[in-house]
Parts: sequence; structure tokens; C-alpha cells
Amino acid sequence: MRTGIWLIGARGSVAVTATVGALALRAGLAEPVGCVTEQPPLCDAALPAWTDLVIGGHDIVATPVLKKAETLAAGGVLPGRIVGVLTSELLAHEDRVRMLPTAATQAETADRMAADLAAFAQIHRLDRVVVINVSTTEPAAHSHPAHADIDVLHTALTQTDQILPASALAAYAAFRAGCAFVDFTPSTGARLPALADYARQQRVPFGGNDGKTGETLVKSVLAPMFAMRNLRVQSWSGLNLLGGGDGANLADPAANAAKVSSKQRVLGDALGYLPQGTSRIDYVEDLGDFKTAWDLVGFSGFLGTRMRMEFSWHGCDSALAAPLVLDLARVTAAAHAAGHVGALTDLGFFFKDPLGDGPSALSEQWTALTTFVGGLEQRR
Amino acid sequence: MRTGIWLIGARGSVAVTATVGALALRAGLAEPVGCVTEQPPLCDAALPAWTDLVIGGHDIVATPVLKKAETLAAGGVLPGRIVGVLTSELLAHEDRVRMLPTAATQAETADRMAADLAAFAQIHRLDRVVVINVSTTEPAAHSHPAHADIDVLHTALTQTDQILPASALAAYAAFRAGCAFVDFTPSTGARLPALADYARQQRVPFGGNDGKTGETLVKSVLAPMFAMRNLRVQSWSGLNLLGGGDGANLADPAANAAKVSSKQRVLGDALGYLPQGTSRIDYVEDLGDFKTAWDLVGFSGFLGTRMRMEFSWHGCDSALAAPLVLDLARVTAAAHAAGHVGALTDLGFFFKDPLGDGPSALSEQWTALTTFVGGLEQRR
Amino acid sequence: MRTGIWLIGARGSVAVTATVGALALRAGLAEPVGCVTEQPPLCDAALPAWTDLVIGGHDIVATPVLKKAETLAAGGVLPGRIVGVLTSELLAHEDRVRMLPTAATQAETADRMAADLAAFAQIHRLDRVVVINVSTTEPAAHSHPAHADIDVLHTALTQTDQILPASALAAYAAFRAGCAFVDFTPSTGARLPALADYARQQRVPFGGNDGKTGETLVKSVLAPMFAMRNLRVQSWSGLNLLGGGDGANLADPAANAAKVSSKQRVLGDALGYLPQGTSRIDYVEDLGDFKTAWDLVGFSGFLGTRMRMEFSWHGCDSALAAPLVLDLARVTAAAHAAGHVGALTDLGFFFKDPLGDGPSALSEQWTALTTFVGGLEQRR
Amino acid sequence: MRTGIWLIGARGSVAVTATVGALALRAGLAEPVGCVTEQPPLCDAALPAWTDLVIGGHDIVATPVLKKAETLAAGGVLPGRIVGVLTSELLAHEDRVRMLPTAATQAETADRMAADLAAFAQIHRLDRVVVINVSTTEPAAHSHPAHADIDVLHTALTQTDQILPASALAAYAAFRAGCAFVDFTPSTGARLPALADYARQQRVPFGGNDGKTGETLVKSVLAPMFAMRNLRVQSWSGLNLLGGGDGANLADPAANAAKVSSKQRVLGDALGYLPQGTSRIDYVEDLGDFKTAWDLVGFSGFLGTRMRMEFSWHGCDSALAAPLVLDLARVTAAAHAAGHVGALTDLGFFFKDPLGDGPSALSEQWTALTTFVGGLEQRR
Repeated sequence: MRTGIWLIGARGSVAVTATVGALALRAGLAEPVGCVTEQPPLCDAALPAWTDLVIGGHDIVATPVLKKAETLAAGGVLPGRIVGVLTSELLAHEDRVRMLPTAATQAETADRMAADLAAFAQIHRLDRVVVINVSTTEPAAHSHPAHADIDVLHTALTQTDQILPASALAAYAAFRAGCAFVDFTPSTGARLPALADYARQQRVPFGGNDGKTGETLVKSVLAPMFAMRNLRVQSWSGLNLLGGGDGANLADPAANAAKVSSKQRVLGDALGYLPQGTSRIDYVEDLGDFKTAWDLVGFSGFLGTRMRMEFSWHGCDSALAAPLVLDLARVTAAAHAAGHVGALTDLGFFFKDPLGDGPSALSEQWTALTTFVGGLEQRR
Repeated sequence: MRTGIWLIGARGSVAVTATVGALALRAGLAEPVGCVTEQPPLCDAALPAWTDLVIGGHDIVATPVLKKAETLAAGGVLPGRIVGVLTSELLAHEDRVRMLPTAATQAETADRMAADLAAFAQIHRLDRVVVINVSTTEPAAHSHPAHADIDVLHTALTQTDQILPASALAAYAAFRAGCAFVDFTPSTGARLPALADYARQQRVPFGGNDGKTGETLVKSVLAPMFAMRNLRVQSWSGLNLLGGGDGANLADPAANAAKVSSKQRVLGDALGYLPQGTSRIDYVEDLGDFKTAWDLVGFSGFLGTRMRMEFSWHGCDSALAAPLVLDLARVTAAAHAAGHVGALTDLGFFFKDPLGDGPSALSEQWTALTTFVGGLEQRR
Repeated sequence: MRTGIWLIGARGSVAVTATVGALALRAGLAEPVGCVTEQPPLCDAALPAWTDLVIGGHDIVATPVLKKAETLAAGGVLPGRIVGVLTSELLAHEDRVRMLPTAATQAETADRMAADLAAFAQIHRLDRVVVINVSTTEPAAHSHPAHADIDVLHTALTQTDQILPASALAAYAAFRAGCAFVDFTPSTGARLPALADYARQQRVPFGGNDGKTGETLVKSVLAPMFAMRNLRVQSWSGLNLLGGGDGANLADPAANAAKVSSKQRVLGDALGYLPQGTSRIDYVEDLGDFKTAWDLVGFSGFLGTRMRMEFSWHGCDSALAAPLVLDLARVTAAAHAAGHVGALTDLGFFFKDPLGDGPSALSEQWTALTTFVGGLEQRR
Repeated sequence: MRTGIWLIGARGSVAVTATVGALALRAGLAEPVGCVTEQPPLCDAALPAWTDLVIGGHDIVATPVLKKAETLAAGGVLPGRIVGVLTSELLAHEDRVRMLPTAATQAETADRMAADLAAFAQIHRLDRVVVINVSTTEPAAHSHPAHADIDVLHTALTQTDQILPASALAAYAAFRAGCAFVDFTPSTGARLPALADYARQQRVPFGGNDGKTGETLVKSVLAPMFAMRNLRVQSWSGLNLLGGGDGANLADPAANAAKVSSKQRVLGDALGYLPQGTSRIDYVEDLGDFKTAWDLVGFSGFLGTRMRMEFSWHGCDSALAAPLVLDLARVTAAAHAAGHVGALTDLGFFFKDPLGDGPSALSEQWTALTTFVGGLEQRR
């Protein structure tokens, strides 16, 4: 099952880490730490092998991937030794990354993107391609009547207005090319009625949104802990300090609002009520690719006794996100092969703001994921 | 189903908090925060009602329970208002607490304990009694040949030597009186082959050990999180600062060792390997009934990137333990009624060092518990 | 030296804690913990004795002080026992608290305030009175031409417009009545050229602004530590979570901005450069009178090695502020007696945003304070 | 003023970091971050210039310094780029590091050490040499009658017994060779009456002990803060997690005890009483050259209100210690040149457990240091 991964934002930190990692895994240079599909029972499922994966992608910048990899190595995100060994592979990879097309209309842009996808599949003799958006977070999109109906949308895109935000246009192009689509960001992606219809028409699945790599991951186990113990969470406040491109982008209040909202959703779902407090995001350039989150949880126990918990999470976003991107490509490709179309609602394990009404507790999401992937296996 | 709860250590912080809480719940003065049996689906099971519970117990000190409750109120553990309202109930409760008997032989001591239990059941017309050990942690016990065989044990106890540690003698006396037994401490309790045999002979169940109320509770959700995400935990170090009677006792290195060992078990179980680091316990009198735990988790992700997480837990042990004591009484009484005998191995949700080979991840323990309790319901 | 303390906001948490504390100290019910004037060498200076102090004040609410004290006791801020013992003194104190006057013009309001001050001094035979603003933080004030010139100001106040924010009007009224003024809040207070002139004309001193009770206190020792060690602070980010009235008020972005700005000033002063990062304030009602601050400091050492420090501060604002209010009253009254007029620039030890260009490192502020107070002693 | 630095433990992490740093400073490859003698007013004092310094030393292991530097670079302690640029300098440095002599008697060993020092000074035409102990911490030494009297000591060292621990023998050899001595470790060093006499006889100064690089540094500003504010510190508990050679060594309970004791001294000195709690040290190999300390401070304020502060310090010991080693060499050489002999008691700024009865608050230690160094300047 030769599988292509087409990354929107292919020259960014997450994409380059995923690329170096996939090459390193194929070359046996690294262990698949952080790859959840390498764990039982997922490792026994019929997923594409590391050697079946080919990575390409679009970006709006031209920095060579090798150079970005070297920058990441200098910042402690990638091991310099591995980047050195993979130099020739990374130079070869460069040919598989293209500038994101721009055209007079979004319809034309989408055509060119779809053409790139078709060429990628043909050149590398791929059975299927999964398009994954790992570009930076967009501001919340403006709604438009064409978002509700795929036929209206087709027409609207032939105008010179910008009808779709970039993430949604990527989804549209993927579906046009018969590819699955996953949005790893909090952007719109495929979350429009017209695009959901289009995916079903084109018989392709899609997944998202917003990879769960830090504070929200921890919340998704701690909130259920408080709930299972019937402790009353009075307040849950947090501060996320981010460097890197994503941090700078989220300093924009509009993008920030989108992300913050998806960060608190898990609390209401797990607890059945929303405690006081908010979760903030601040940009601190000096943190580079790392992020630090601090959360304070005030809770009360038997007879009202007040107690508290704090945690600090110091994570490298790229190192946490990249293996999940590879996992999602494997799972989504297998789902596509097994005939799933439309929204994949059993992937909540990976996302802060998952599609559908699945559970928000990590352990239940794990059960949903393993059941889903196990079912793929049986069907084949 | 009138149910007695007989607390070993009935004048201690946990016992008095449980007692005040049970009286407050019966009087409708408080909500059952922290009581897990009040949550779905457990709240639908056929468990004894709050109004069915009668509490008594043994202790080696004579401080009136009311006075202890007032001390706990001054320390912020109990609300002074509720203690005030319950004054007459607490004075009445005083008659149900007896000095722990002492006699020339442990057999004779056990006879007197069993006689107290029988009198308690008769006076209050109880269908059954659950004996729960909430006294302070013992040093690790010395092994003795009589621990292996109940017949040898019966004989050995008639000598003047101390054959059993106090917690095990309490279990022996409970079984003699036909009562279920739960050990909420890390002490020996019923964990001797001779006592397990005796429980089966007497057709009574037993549970334990070591109530999971703080750092280990958090570990039991965080360690599975790292495992599910296939992140490599390199080190996990912790410091527990405890005031109160338990803290002073655990400053004794022998008792400390027993507790520390049960605290790290969850990591090996959840991760499949034991990371570097230890968990320490220190006594800080000034903390009173509160305890603070700090843990540092060093982990690595994709391609070896090093990351870290810290958490601080500031909890009131009595407020966390007391509702679980009531939960355990309800569940164990129902299990006894349903015909369960010997070790109850589905109660890992409550314990740091549970009996049997059950799961160590909290979510799996929750599933095991709800399945077990649901089964009790169906059987009746 | 009989000394009056007139509190603007006399029914608030800080004021009531200061009042109960002053009464408790006079009655020998409590030790002067947190009172810096009780430490050598300040305790040897010629300051008013606890028994010389009489407290009164203005407020815009009518809640009895005794009731507020009981509320604070229930919230763990004041010991209930002491409030109980002082019941009659607190009832007597009630007569010394008046509703803040309101009139058609600010000139008239100021006259009524000054009349209240004069009556307070006369009734209690006070040598002098220090007016201290402990009301909630105001939004940043709009500038007005009359702020620059005292003669213009006198005239402008006779119009019906609001020329001065409430804190500045309190300073004006204090000066009119010949009283010293201290602003314990980040509000405008006496920080207008016209008011500084007026203080000099009236031969009274004034001090401020913004009592240093938590995160900034810690910053004022940690930032100099990094500076003395020549370590490079790359970023310093913080989150302040506040309950209580002050917290709710600071949720207002305008007031928040004033406070945040004074919080970062210490960093630039101590380090000689401003690191990345900001200090945020969020309101979490559930925290009550307590506040929690978390700061992350990223710094680099020899050859660029990256390191970090975090701290959490969990303080009770009233318990930290109240003894400083009493200290400031004692020191300001002594400065007044010793003939100081205008801005007191040696009180930076007490303030986040001190008047003048004094040092920002706490140890240097301590030296400045003790030298200043020692000088008062010699002059008498 | 050509100055030699002779490091005992010249192949260890601290020594190699200091060596690479000194070479980098001389070559203009790095800024003197972390070097306190580069700050005003110390930077204006008559201290040896970076270009005046020559480094040599003894060690008991033979790992090449270049190889150790590469290992440190791989662990993120040194920048690989700088190590690369300095390769030839580091190879040249290798010739200045000798195996620590061993002989039948300690007198003979000391003679050989002194001969190495003399040769070092002659070859490099040094005006003076400062011997600095940066080897790993020794267990607490056994006392011996010869420690009290230098004449008895001279004789005793000619026996085959081990009379002096290694750190003290290094001090003895330094004094024999007319060199100043500084102990950067908590080991005995020159802290024996006989050695103090010997230093005075030989007209050389000595300094120590135990470089203040992490938790204790923070304590030396926070404890005075609580003291200046007259807040009552009820408890101060800490856990230090160390990797690296020092950590492994301190896992030895005897060495651990020595270090822990010097860590709590600052609290008693600053506060005037010793709060509850202890400071623990644990070895966690995975932390490498980094160490993490966590401290919990429980304190009470006005009217007994309970509050708390926590901090975490994540530092790289070598990066913090190395610039101080260079600072100490500069200052001690200048003191030697200015005629100071015996214990240097104004260097408490650098040490956890300083010689003499100087202040323990960092700001007062800074004043003492700058006064001392300023005095050196004036004397010349």
C-alpha cells in the first residue's frame, strides 16, 4: 500500500521534523518514540509500513528543507547527527516540495494544487495520498453563503473573491484530486457543510482538528480523573507560552481566540460543567520551538475542603506533533482503503477539537481509536 | 441492608472526617463530593443507602471524637458550622467507639475485638459489618511461619509472642466475627496466606491496600498518558511532604520504605519499564492534615528530543480519603451480600497497591470497578 | 504622638484586616508578623506606638466592618477567634467610618471630606492624620489641563465636571485638611503636578504607589540576583490570578493595563534591559482573597547555555497588605512630624511603582528606608 | 599580571567548561555572561585580564579534555561550534594537564604536586598561580590530631597513613608551592587549623567553600526577602535532583550529609531561626549536567494567615560554576598580589558555606565583595 503524505506547510517545523523522522525510521536510524501506531494493538493493524511512505508538499516559503532541518538541529529539536546522515535524502526530498500555487481565482488555484497532487501520485506510483495541513493557524474565517452548498461553492470559487480560507481551499483541492485530508491545525480545514458533501461525493475521508500535543493532552487525562473521583473543580486557569512561528501567529488575537476556545472544550465535556478560569496563549520568541504551559486547578473535596494542583509542561511542539502526523497519515490512508468516506469521528485521540461527538477523555478516545483501526483490519 | 462500618483508628483524622461526613450526608447538610459511588453508573447500583450506615470503631487513644472534629475544623479540614450542628450526633457516636482491647495473648485480644464487633452488630441490628483499617501505617512486618497456614496461626496466637502486626490481627478478628475487612493503609492487613484462607473459610471478602489519594492518583492517569502516546519516560522523581500523624509515622524509615515502594509500582505497570528516580516522603509538621507532592517527569519524544513535566499536588488527605472509606464500605458490604469471598481484586480504583493483578491505569480500574459493582446488582 | 489613620475604602478587605490587626496588636492578641517597622533597626525609631493609632475612614458601601471581618474569618483571612474577642471594639470602630461624601461639585465633595478629617482629628485629639487609599484600582485617568496647576485646579473643581479621579480627589481633600496622604493602589493618587504643589503649599508629605505584596516583591529580589550574577534573562513571563474585589476590578482592561505596566518596571530597572514576556492578570472569583502568581524566567549562562526558573506564589493579599498599611502610617506620620513635605521618595520598599528615581532592588530599598527612618529619629 | 589557574579535577565538567570558556573569551568568541567580575564596579578593578590567564591542572582520569568538551557539547552544555573552533587550543591545553601524583607518603605526593605547580609557573612565566579544587565532593573527613598543628602535620604526612583528605592535601601542596588556594567544593580543603597556619606562614590567601550555583543562590535572596518583610517562615523543604558525576557522588550518604548541611545554613543566618523541613539530594543519571531543584516555602503573615511559595530551578551546573571559577581566580590572584594572606572572608557571594562570619544575604555579600575588590585596587 504505497502511501503519499502531502504536507501543506512542508517547510515548517512540524513538517520538517516529520520528514526527517520518517526518513530516519525508514533508515533504521531512530526508534518510533511518540508514534502511537507502533504500540499494541495498533502495531498489529494493516497500516502502511514506514517504507511505504513518500512525503511531499506545498509551502509559501522557499527555505530549503535541509536548511530548516539544520536550524532545528541547532535549536535542539532534531539530532544534528541524524540530519547529517540524511543529507542526500533531504536534498532528494526537496524535489517533492512545491511552491503553493496562486492564481486569479480560487478555482484555478485548487486546480493547480490538485494537479500537483496527481503528479506526485503518478511519479511515485502511490495507491493513495493523504493531504495534511500543518501550516500556521489562520484567523477565524468569515462565513459565506457558498460554504453551505458544494454546487454554489464550485461556482463561487470561479470568481476573484476569496471565498475559502487557505486551509479549506487545501481540503477542496485534496478532495478534487481524490485524496483524503487531515487538518492538524485549529483552522477551518474541511469543517464546512459544502466540503463535507464534496468529500462524500468524491468518496474520500477527512479528519481533524488541531493536534493535541501539550496542555490539552494533560487536561484530557486530569479532567476525567477529577470527574471519576467526583471531586468538584472550581477553577482551571492556564497560560501557554509559545515561541516559534505558531506562537507569533497566535499572538494575533483572532487566531488566539480560536485556539483558546478549543482548549477549554475538554473541561466541559469531561466534568459536565465549566469551571471558572481561562486558558491564555502568549508569544515568547525566546522559547523557540518549545512551549511551556502552566495550569492551576482549584478543586474542593469532601465537605468543601479546598485543594489545588499545578502543573508545568515543557514540550517541543514539533517533536510531539511530527509522529502524530505520521500516525494520522497511516490511519487515514487505511481508512480510505477500507472505504470510509466523510468525517472520521474516531480520531479524537489525536485532536483538541475533534470532529463529531466522541468522548473527550483520553482513555476513551484510545478505546475508540483502537476499535476503529482494528475494524479496518478486519474489513480488508 | 443495614450496614455497620467499624473503623480501626476511629479517633484519627480520616475516621473522624468520614464519621462527620456520613452524619452530614444523612442529615442532608452536605453534598457527596468525593464519593465515587454517587456517580453514574455506581449511583444506580444496589448499595447501602447513607441512612443505612452506622459507624463505630476501635482506637488506642481516648480523645473524644467531638474534640478531634473541632481540631480538624480549626485546621480547615472540616467546616466548623457542620461540626457545630452535629454536636449531639457526635456525642452519641462516642458510645460506639471503644478502646482497642489488649490481652495476654493475641488470640484473646482478637476474641475481645470480635466480641465488640458482635455487640455492635446486635445493638444496631446490622445485617453486616465492614471493618476498615484507617490507623497509622505500620513498619514492614517480620515474616513468621504461622503466617502461611491458618491452623498453625490459630495455635501460635495463643502464645504470648506477637505473631501478627496490629493490622493483620484486626483482619483476623474481623474474619472471626464474620465481618468483611478492608485495609486503607499500606500495612499488612489481610495480605497473609493464612488470613486469605481464613476469609474463605468464614465466607467473607476483604479488600486493600493503601488508599490512593494524592500523588499516586495523579500518576495513575499521567503514566498511561505517556504510555498511550508512546513517549519514553526517562525519569520520574517525587517528594511528598506530609504533616499530621501519618507524616510523623512515615518519617520512620521502615514505614517509609513500605509506602515508597507501593508508590512506584504504578509506573512499572503502566509504562512496561521502570524509569529512573525515586519517590520520597518527608515529615513537615507544619503542613498539618495537608500534604504537598511535587513530581518531575523527564521524557523524550520523536528523535530523542528531551522534554519535561512537573506537577504539584496540595491535598488534604482526610478530605480525600474519607469519602473513599465510605465508598469502600458500601461496595464491600454489597459484595459480601452478593456472596463474594476472599480477596476483592476489582477495587484497584481505590488503592495504591491493590490486591491481585488488575490494571494500574485509573480509567481501566474505573471500568473494572463499575463492571464489578454492576454485577453485584444483577446478582441480587 | 497620637496618630490617626484614615482609610479610603475603609470597609474593604485590606482596610478591615488592617483595622482588626491594629486592634489585636493593641490588645496584645497577636504578634506583629508582617510589620516591617517592628524589625531592627526600624523598631528602635521614633514611630507612633500601636497604642497611639486610631483608625477611621470613608467608604461608598455600608456593610458593617464587623460583618466584613466575619466574612474574612470564614474565608481563612482572619482568625475567627480574634474577631470574636474584638467584637465590641469593632462595633465602636463603626462610628469612625463614614460614607464617602458626594456633592454637586468636586470642590464641595473635597470640603466635606476635609471636614470629616478635621472632626476625626478633633474628636480623638490626634496630633496628625495620615490618609491612605486602599480602595479598588481605578481605570487609568484622563489627563486634564487643570492637573498641571494648583490654582487652575482649585477653580476647575468648582465646576460640575469630574476633573479628578476619586483617588486624586482624596489626596486633594487630605492636603486641604493638612493631612499626609499615601496611595497603596496603582491609581493616580497624588501623582499630578498640581497636587504635588498643593502638598508643598500645605506642608504635608505624600507617598505611593501600589503596595508591593506578591509577584513584584519576589521579582524585586530575583531580578537583582540574576543581575549580580551577570546572567542574561531572556524572558520573564507571568500570570496573576486574583479573586476578591481587586481581581474583579482588574478584569477591566483599562485598570489591568495600569497594573501590568508597574509590574514589569522592576525588571528593566534591575537588569538594565527589558526581557521578552509580559505579566498578565486574570480574575478567578473562586480564589477569594488569595492570589496565585506563576512566573517563568528563561535565562542563559556561560557560553549561552539555556536555563530556567519558575515560581508560584500563593498569597493572601489582605494579610500581606494590611501590616504594610500600618507601617506606612507610622513612617509617614513620623516624616510629617519631622517636617518632610512633598513626595517621600525613600519608601520604594513598600511599592511596586514608587515615587522618584530610587533603586528597584529590595535590598537597596531596605537600606534607603532604614536610612530615611533613622534620620527622622535623629532630627527630633 | 600573568596568572595561572591550576584546577584540581581538570578533566571534569566544571573545569572543562571553564577552560573552553576562558579560551573563548580570549578569542572573542563569547561574551562573559555569568562572569561577575565583568560587571560594574568589579570590571573597573585591577584584576588579571582574560589574556593574562593560563589554565593547567591535575586529574586522576586520563580522558582528553577535547573529548570531554565534545561530550559536553553533545549534552547541550557547550556550543559545538565553539568547541570546534577551539580544537587546536584544546589540544595544546592537554599538555598543561597532568595526572595527579601518587606516592608512598602524602608528604611525597604533595612534593610532586608542588613541583608540578612550580614547573607550570616557570614554563608560562606566571606571576602567581591560584589552585582551585573543582573535583567531586569528598565524604566528610575523619579528624586527626595533626590537623590542629602545622608542625605535627608536616611530620605526620611523612608516614604512610592517609592523614589528609585529597582536598586538604591539594591545599597543602598549593601552600608549599607558594600558591593561593580556593575550594569550590564542600570538601575539607584548607579548613583545618594547621592549614590556616601554613597559609599565613607561606604568605598566601585561600578561599571557599562550595560554589553557590543553584538552589542556595535563590535561597540567599528569598530568605532575606521574607526576613525584611517580617514574614514568618514555618517550613522550607527542598529536593535537588542531580545527574552527572557530582550527582552520583552525592548519592553517597556521607557526602550528601555534608552538602545538605551547608545548604540549610543560609536559612538560619538570614531568618534568625531555623524553619521546619530539610533539603534533599537525589541522583538521577538522566539529568546529565543539569540539575533541578524544587523548594516549598510555607510562611505565615499578619494574624497568622498561611501562605506558600514554590520554586523550581533548572540549571546547568557547569555553566553556572565555570564563570565563577574564573572570577575567583581573578579576585584571589589580585588579593594575593595585594598582600592578603590566610582566609579570604569577603567572598561569601560565591559560596554556600563561606569562610568567616560574613553576611548570608546575597546583596550584603555583593557589597562585601565589591568593597573588598575595590580596596585591592586602591592598594596597588
